[in-house]
This record gives sequence, C-alpha cells and structure tokens, in this order.
Amino acid sequence: MISKLINEIVNKKAPVVVGLDPNLKFIPEHLKKNATEEKGETLEAAAAAVLAFNKAIVDATYDLIPAVKPQIAMYEQFGIPGLIAYKEIVDYCHEKGLIVIGDVKRGDIGSTSESYAIAHLGEITVGNKTYRPFDEDFATVNPYLGTDGVKPFVDICNKCDKGIFVLVKTSNPSSGEFQDKDMEGRPLYEHVADKVCEWGAESMDGEYSNVGAVVGATYPAQGETARRLMPHTYILVPGYGAQGGKASDLKAFFNKDGLGAIVNSSRGIIAAYTKEPYKDRFDALHFADASREAVKDMLEDINGAI
Amino acid sequence: MISKLINEIVNKKAPVVVGLDPNLKFIPEHLKKNATEEKGETLEAAAAAVLAFNKAIVDATYDLIPAVKPQIAMYEQFGIPGLIAYKEIVDYCHEKGLIVIGDVKRGDIGSTSESYAIAHLGEITVGNKTYRPFDEDFATVNPYLGTDGVKPFVDICNKCDKGIFVLVKTSNPSSGEFQDKDMEGRPLYEHVADKVCEWGAESMDGEYSNVGAVVGATYPAQGETARRLMPHTYILVPGYGAQGGKASDLKAFFNKDGLGAIVNSSRGIIAAYTKEPYKDRFDALHFADASREAVKDMLEDINGAI
Repeated sequence: MISKLINEIVNKKAPVVVGLDPNLKFIPEHLKKNATEEKGETLEAAAAAVLAFNKAIVDATYDLIPAVKPQIAMYEQFGIPGLIAYKEIVDYCHEKGLIVIGDVKRGDIGSTSESYAIAHLGEITVGNKTYRPFDEDFATVNPYLGTDGVKPFVDICNKCDKGIFVLVKTSNPSSGEFQDKDMEGRPLYEHVADKVCEWGAESMDGEYSNVGAVVGATYPAQGETARRLMPHTYILVPGYGAQGGKASDLKAFFNKDGLGAIVNSSRGIIAAYTKEPYKDRFDALHFADASREAVKDMLEDINGAI
Repeated sequence: MISKLINEIVNKKAPVVVGLDPNLKFIPEHLKKNATEEKGETLEAAAAAVLAFNKAIVDATYDLIPAVKPQIAMYEQFGIPGLIAYKEIVDYCHEKGLIVIGDVKRGDIGSTSESYAIAHLGEITVGNKTYRPFDEDFATVNPYLGTDGVKPFVDICNKCDKGIFVLVKTSNPSSGEFQDKDMEGRPLYEHVADKVCEWGAESMDGEYSNVGAVVGATYPAQGETARRLMPHTYILVPGYGAQGGKASDLKAFFNKDGLGAIVNSSRGIIAAYTKEPYKDRFDALHFADASREAVKDMLEDINGAI
C-alpha cells in the first residue's frame, strides 16, 4: 500500500494529506440549516451537515492531493449517525481515487487489536460471505501496549495490502511528558522508532515499509532524529498550520530522495474560509473554493521548503 | 461516578466486572443460525447474534455483578451494525441497573480527545437539543500523548459525573517492552501512575477518584507497586482467568479497606460453556447458565483470596 501512496504523491507532486476533521463550529450555517430543516435538531442532521461539508471539500481538492485523513473521533462524537457518515466519507473518497488514512489511533492487547485491524483494514467472514467493515487504506496505531498490540495490524497489512502509521512523537504540547523522557539513555520515542523499524521490516513494499510513523511538525528536532532512525519508514506529519508547524521545519522529515514524509493539514484547509488570508476573498457559501486555494498555497509552501 | 460503582460492589459483595467481548467463535451455533436465517449472511446477522448472546449473559448474571465491560473492538469489527449492537448492549445493561465500563482505549491530542470524551461520556448539542451519543459510565483511556490527551476526559467526568480508567500496566505479554523500561530511575508505568494521581486529584468522589487505572492481573508485582503509588485510585484489573491471572495474585491490587480494585473476566465467563469445569454440565443451549455458574465461582475465588 505504501508504494501506491508514494506513486500518488509523486504523480501529483503533493506530499500532503487533508485532514477531514469536521467540527460543527467550522461548518457553514447554510449546511447546518439545510440538514436540520430536513432531519430536525438530531444527530442525523449533524452527521448530514458533516458529510455535505466534507464531500464539498473533497470535490474541490481531490485532483490536487493523494490522500485524506478523516479523524474518526470527530464523527464518533455524533454517535451511530456520525459513524455512518464516517464510513460514507471513506467510500466517497475512494470513489474519487483518494487514499484514505483512517486516523483512529487504536491499539489494545493482541486479540483485541486483531479486531480493530479487521474493522479498519481487514475483512470478516459471516458464513460464506466476506465483508470489509470500514476499509480504510491506512490506520493510525498507538504503541503503548508493545509488539503484541501492533503485530495484528502488521499481519493484516500483509494480508490485505494496507498500511499503518504508529504514533512515535505526537504533535501536541504535552507529548514530551512521556515520549521525550530519558529511558535507558534515549527518549522513549526513539525506542518506539526502533520498534517501528522492526515491525516494518516484516511489511516492506519497495524502498519503504507499510508500517509508517507519526511525528509532529511541531517538533522538528525530534523529526530529524526520527528520520535518521527510521530510513525506510514513511512519516505522517501532523501539526502543520493551525497547530503551529512551519514549512521551514519540514525539511528534516524528508529523505534525500524527496520522499519519506506526508504532511497533514486539517483546520488550515477545511476551515480556510474562516481564516486569513482567505476570509476576505471567500464567504461561507464558497468555503470549498477557499479550501482549494489553501491546498494550493500549502503545496507551494511545502514544495518550496523541501 | 466511582462512589456509585463502589456502592454496587459493596452491596453485591462483588469486586468483579464481566467483559462482554464477543467473538463469533464463542457464540453458540443456534444463535448464529437464528440470525442468519432472519438476516442472511450479513454483518447485521453477526451483530444480531452478538447482541442476543450478550443479552442472555446479562440476563443470567446482572443480579450478581455491579458492572460490565463491553470491548468496543469486538463490535467495531462488524462495522456499523456492530456499533449499533454495542450501543444497544450499553443501553440494555443500564436498563438492568448495571454500570457500563466502555473498553474503548481512546486517546489523542486535546481537541480530538475532547470529541472522544463527548462520544463516550459526554453530551453534544445540535441546535437546542442535547444528546449523549454512547453514554457509557466509564471509558478506558490511553496515556501515551500525556496530560492534554487525558484532561478532556477528566473535564467531562467532572461535568457529567463519569469516570475513566487510564492504562498504566497492561495485561498482555509484551506490555513490558515500553511500560517496564527504566525511565529516569523508575519504570515508565510508575511515571504514568504518578500522572494518574495528579489527573485524579481534580476529580475526587469520596475516598477515591473518578480517574482510575488499568493494571493487569498477570503482573502482580507491578500491581503491588501501582497500589502503593495510587492510594486513592480504583484499579481495573484485566487478565484474570483466560489470560492467566490467579486469585492469589489479586490481593496486592486491593487496599486494606477491601476496596480499590475491580477484577475483570471476559472469556472465562462468557465462553464458560466451552471450558472446564462447565462444558460437561452445560451444553450450548444453556451457555448463559454456565456463565452464571462461572460468575459465582469467580466471586468465591476472589472473595476467598482478598
């Protein structure tokens, strides 16, 4: 699967992914009004507004980008109707030829991680029929439980040609509380990086592994170390834009081949119409056009810096 | 919320929780046949079999136990129909007066953790109406991202009178890879235990905090340390039974007041009819009676040991 992602990145000259993380406060009033007029003030209406919002952004940007990253929490907060919308947006993005990174951050003991891996990347058999429940292309995975919590995901990557990104150094302010603390001479996140290489060696797909890593744009020094420790690992880089990561900081996350990293922006793209420099040029009715402009600007910014 | 759980534990003399972690291989053929006859070989049929299985076990055991712990991964693997069944079992257990610990192991950066906390413990507003999406009483939380990934859950515990159990030392074989490694003089899990106390101080409910911890029965030495480091923290103890934890090992997890821990068994209870000593006395049609016997035996075993 990683080779497919790399092909799309190279073809579109776009080492970026758009995070489809809707929050009701970003969604224009006219979409919320349409939804509540049809479905009342219900979770179904909220989910319908989210879906309409995301589809419009996908329609306006899919030719520019290789991949999207829906954050399942933002759908899960609307209960079952939200999760139905999540599945619909996964399928819609596939119809548009996009690779879907399910930002699910799952991870548990072995038998339970296997169920999560089946849910998001694998297939399940009922009698003589086989189903792919959510069917994203990649999922994000939490490493706190160690190898037996990650291995079931790797096995399913190999079986179904899928990929994962394991949390190594996250973009949030308190990520250093545990991840940066010295553990037998090196920070915890470096130990996790070593394990990512070990896990990834069992799922190579060309020069890179289907087992990738998450390292936040907000920590460029750790990005440089992570890049060095994991030469064959693709790095998913959140935290650019709204969280404070700058393009000039991103070079460290890429290999000399110009590959090895894919940079995510969520709020900076999907809520562009509410932010400078777009809000004066685009009103709420043209939110998706603002997102397209923001993707173009992000591509110029990142391709100029790396 | 923790005081409510403690009351139920004391009233029923039962420091135990039954893990409702269905796997199609545990579910008797007659339930699967009923479901596929009605709904075909579909995810809906699998979910219906899971729901019928779990409801029968709840009916047979609810008077003996204070709480259940459905593992959401086991439902998520059946996609949307599975998650609908998850929500139905949460509601059904509430109707039976049981406390529901959603074993969801969520955790992300701050704004995303807030969405997970809303999904599972909180409420969301659409227009003028407010909904509680999944509405479990407790959720399990992964600490890898540090304070800003956990704090939104604590805030919602305080707002909605709910609780969480944070992963400290998990029950799986490879949990020591990171959790036991020395970090500035002490294993990582001890640092997490310290943070659990810090987070929990903001959500006290009587002698104990709404912020609990997960420590596996399979690691009694770490259980003893965790007990000492977190005197006001309730410990959810998975790993008893099928994973190898023994009653004699459990004493270390309890405080001198006889409180402070709640022991989970999943497969040992729900699949009792397939295991010694129950399989000779109960056939597949009487699987729920076997589960009731297994709960009684577990209570005797644990109450005898502590």
